Amino acid sequence: MDVLVPFDARSPKQRLGPELDANERREFAEAMLADVLDALDASGADATVLSTAPLGCSAPVVVDERPLSEAVNARLDARPVETPLAVVMADLALATPVALSALLDREGDVVLAAGRGGGTNALVVRASGFRVDYHGASLRDHRLAADAAGLDLAEVDSFQLSTDIDEPTDLVEVLLHNEGRASAWLRDAGYRVHTGDSRVRAERR
Amino acid sequence: MDVLVPFDARSPKQRLGPELDANERREFAEAMLADVLDALDASGADATVLSTAPLGCSAPVVVDERPLSEAVNARLDARPVETPLAVVMADLALATPVALSALLDREGDVVLAAGRGGGTNALVVRASGFRVDYHGASLRDHRLAADAAGLDLAEVDSFQLSTDIDEPTDLVEVLLHNEGRASAWLRDAGYRVHTGDSRVRAERR
Repeated sequence: MDVLVPFDARSPKQRLGPELDANERREFAEAMLADVLDALDASGADATVLSTAPLGCSAPVVVDERPLSEAVNARLDARPVETPLAVVMADLALATPVALSALLDREGDVVLAAGRGGGTNALVVRASGFRVDYHGASLRDHRLAADAAGLDLAEVDSFQLSTDIDEPTDLVEVLLHNEGRASAWLRDAGYRVHTGDSRVRAERR
Repeated sequence: MDVLVPFDARSPKQRLGPELDANERREFAEAMLADVLDALDASGADATVLSTAPLGCSAPVVVDERPLSEAVNARLDARPVETPLAVVMADLALATPVALSALLDREGDVVLAAGRGGGTNALVVRASGFRVDYHGASLRDHRLAADAAGLDLAEVDSFQLSTDIDEPTDLVEVLLHNEGRASAWLRDAGYRVHTGDSRVRAERR
């Protein structure tokens, strides 16, 4: 299946600012992207990176400077109706080929994978009449949009796909579960799992 | 399958202190417990609540004042070796019968469901030689313990089971995904989904 992987190549992962400087955020974001592309490749998907600027990586890249929802909707509108298209976020550092295959193989006109905080971390569209809007609690909006268009909606229940790495408190999930470039990058940068208080966190030494 | 549901009936959900007073925390914790017991019942499980104090609820209650890991290990040690035992946390307000059935039906001497932050939100034990330790990054420790005992380990990948409701930022997940008593309680208490900033949250009006 064709899979779009949106990537902000200009100022990625700004909410990690309290932990990582701009160069580090860029390196770490590219490490996560590489892991996601590897997992998609292993799941048999054909990934294309939808980037805000030119980028070197293991998949074809199309550059689109428009905001995320607009750029994704342009691709949804441009595809033949009978061609499914998936969208998988570039910061799903925990995503394994098994979890991605479960998403891509799940039947439904629209298939959603919830992110924490009401986001939509991944989706599959197999019908016309559905457009994305990633602003706010997008999962709820995407449920309503599928319903309004009379489309069959399915949701996959995946911890891996629900875990986008946006904020400092998310970094520990990469250390605990990712076995690729992203966790290696964090360890090289000095991060370790810190236990002892109420919720385990990643701490830099 | 026999399922233990540990519950702190004395001072539940203390980390929700910034949002809810002690009476509210107790009511909300009992609403989540009721939802978890309903979901377990619908999945065909035989639940017993392992409570730190007497409690009225829809399942049998055994009172054990010892710390969590000690109380659970006492039950693991007391059961016949061939009898599987599951442990499901009482604050998994998003857990559906489908997600719980996937856990209980998954093969393995030890089956783990990861919580965010390295916790173990649910597990199944079908062999002797495994003991729990819920302190710190327990998922990692439970993986090592299963390995050290030479047991077959499996992990289920579930957003629903990964989402324990511990901290104020977790409340929005209940509003977005729970359709039972816990979300009704939050709405009655004035909570609504608030969008508009970087991560969606529950806000009280």
